[in-house]
Amino acid sequence: MSAQPLKFVTLLGSLRKASYNGMVARTLPKVAPEGISIEALPSIGTLPLYDADIQQEEGFPADIEAIAEQIRQADGVIIVTPEYNYSVPGGLKNAIDWISRLPNQPLAGKPVLIQTSSMGPVGGARCQYHLRQILVFLDAMVMNKPEFMGGVIQNKVDEQIGEVIDQGTLDFLRGQLTAFADYTRRVSK
Amino acid sequence: MSAQPLKFVTLLGSLRKASYNGMVARTLPKVAPEGISIEALPSIGTLPLYDADIQQEEGFPADIEAIAEQIRQADGVIIVTPEYNYSVPGGLKNAIDWISRLPNQPLAGKPVLIQTSSMGPVGGARCQYHLRQILVFLDAMVMNKPEFMGGVIQNKVDEQIGEVIDQGTLDFLRGQLTAFADYTRRVSK
Amino acid sequence: MSAQPLKFVTLLGSLRKASYNGMVARTLPKVAPEGISIEALPSIGTLPLYDADIQQEEGFPADIEAIAEQIRQADGVIIVTPEYNYSVPGGLKNAIDWISRLPNQPLAGKPVLIQTSSMGPVGGARCQYHLRQILVFLDAMVMNKPEFMGGVIQNKVDEQIGEVIDQGTLDFLRGQLTAFADYTRRVSK
Amino acid sequence: MSAQPLKFVTLLGSLRKASYNGMVARTLPKVAPEGISIEALPSIGTLPLYDADIQQEEGFPADIEAIAEQIRQADGVIIVTPEYNYSVPGGLKNAIDWISRLPNQPLAGKPVLIQTSSMGPVGGARCQYHLRQILVFLDAMVMNKPEFMGGVIQNKVDEQIGEVIDQGTLDFLRGQLTAFADYTRRVSK
Repeated sequence: MSAQPLKFVTLLGSLRKASYNGMVARTLPKVAPEGISIEALPSIGTLPLYDADIQQEEGFPADIEAIAEQIRQADGVIIVTPEYNYSVPGGLKNAIDWISRLPNQPLAGKPVLIQTSSMGPVGGARCQYHLRQILVFLDAMVMNKPEFMGGVIQNKVDEQIGEVIDQGTLDFLRGQLTAFADYTRRVSK
Repeated sequence: MSAQPLKFVTLLGSLRKASYNGMVARTLPKVAPEGISIEALPSIGTLPLYDADIQQEEGFPADIEAIAEQIRQADGVIIVTPEYNYSVPGGLKNAIDWISRLPNQPLAGKPVLIQTSSMGPVGGARCQYHLRQILVFLDAMVMNKPEFMGGVIQNKVDEQIGEVIDQGTLDFLRGQLTAFADYTRRVSK
Repeated sequence: MSAQPLKFVTLLGSLRKASYNGMVARTLPKVAPEGISIEALPSIGTLPLYDADIQQEEGFPADIEAIAEQIRQADGVIIVTPEYNYSVPGGLKNAIDWISRLPNQPLAGKPVLIQTSSMGPVGGARCQYHLRQILVFLDAMVMNKPEFMGGVIQNKVDEQIGEVIDQGTLDFLRGQLTAFADYTRRVSK
Repeated sequence: MSAQPLKFVTLLGSLRKASYNGMVARTLPKVAPEGISIEALPSIGTLPLYDADIQQEEGFPADIEAIAEQIRQADGVIIVTPEYNYSVPGGLKNAIDWISRLPNQPLAGKPVLIQTSSMGPVGGARCQYHLRQILVFLDAMVMNKPEFMGGVIQNKVDEQIGEVIDQGTLDFLRGQLTAFADYTRRVSK
């Protein structure tokens, strides 16, 4: 008997087209173990800056409703993001700020995996622990280990096809997705 | 002989009109000690989400150039902000992400004071230490003490005039501004 | 059919006899829901400062082996601790440093609840997120919510009997233990 | 006219004899720019675990008084430490907890430089930001940049002589000490 199939969605923290983190996110479906589907959430780049007056007067942006609904229907969320200024990119935090105000909290109890890639050796570590603190408030279930902090990622991708090609990184990602699938099956309500 | 006059600017992390943090920021000029002028920076609410492609193709938004120039000309910056989801509001982080990419870094070596107000008892403490980590990267000089974490701030303002009216809070803010002026004179290059 | 009984152990971060956190820990068995037993772990106060040379030459202290074994046999761990200097007390971190070097990691996959009490309004919040980051490395499963940050705890205890007597706090603790029992049943392997 | 001479002291966070961080600390006097003397503080390994009852009944340990007095007489403190479990070693935090209770606070207003070395790529980054948060409470003046996070340090030392021998690291340390001397002269009261 095979394990229950799972559907994960990726939330990308970078907006630029040639983002290395975008390449990591695009690579994930290709290294996913059998039974795991992985789809990209809509871009967070169209969202207005969070403003409670907008929420009050115009309601939630349609794009945040769409993102939230896809998160609710997924078994887990993979946040793939660069580190900006030793923390979470403002655009990603802005999306989370919008999500956090929604009724029927999409991230509450939801298994989450964090992946950061950057051009230096630290690989986005500083961003990950800020994101973990944020996700405590949202009551998400963030997997501990293994952690993916893709340092010097620019050496591990093919910029033409826009995907990771380094075999060690591909193997690591496949292993991490397997661990995340196990974790998701264990902690899901 | 009196001390050198100083000019501070306030960077507001909230966009909603009736923001309690906005009330704190508006109150500051009225409690400033003699010789200290305090002006509000333009709103961060008009900035696009940071995207390196925009920066590359269109350059920096005029509004971020204006904010940056006012920061460069000020003796110190007072960041007045709510805590969103146990961290820095996405909109404020977005402004910082834009600022961080500018040549002639406006925050490098600049004295900074952080003030957070929130509706619960913790008063934004979680936001302050994330902001401090971010400002390490930007090489700002953030004053340590006294810290202002305005818990239960809704009891300390007059919502009609939009200012703080609680005497203990006013006294604290005046004392903190005096400390920040001393700090600024000490650490400025 | 009643729920499976659970055994929790408390790890106390303060060494002084009249510790408010000690009072919270001593109160927990009395407010525990039916089927939940709660026992105190041995004091961490007898441990030497962690030194890899001691570990190499003399092995692990007997006291840390005893603490670790009780953690392994428990269904979950409740860390009850003050905040010292905006972080985890050195003594508690020292105990965790010893635990982390043990084979057959006692905290890996173990449900953990954090409770902090302090004399100011922030209630130990700064300590909790440092502890959470530490416990990521140890792969513990730290419950998100509700959080217990017992501010102004000195007004809520009877110092003679050494227990919490404030009814609101007692009710909160009972509710939190119920939530921790549910969490433990859900995430335990 | 030459710059004012400065005296720095090193506070070592590791207790084991062959500590890589100890090697870094021992190397510092040899790469110090002219006019900068650097001496090691006494070991923190003899301190008891902080306990307010000990402080009350027996007073401060003689060793912490000695460390504190040397800090008071120094122009700046260089904390050289490994990262344990994604944070500050318990032993180092314990020393700080003792220091924090002293009258005539030795770290208040004192320039501080943090150096971490570890065996992995992240190089102790996680420890540094926890230490910075702790030092906010103690009102120390922690230099922002350049940061030293010595990853894969085991390839950069001579274990026989117990010092750093990698030329790039030596050059970096010399440059960082020069920056710290400039910083100290600027911010000292």
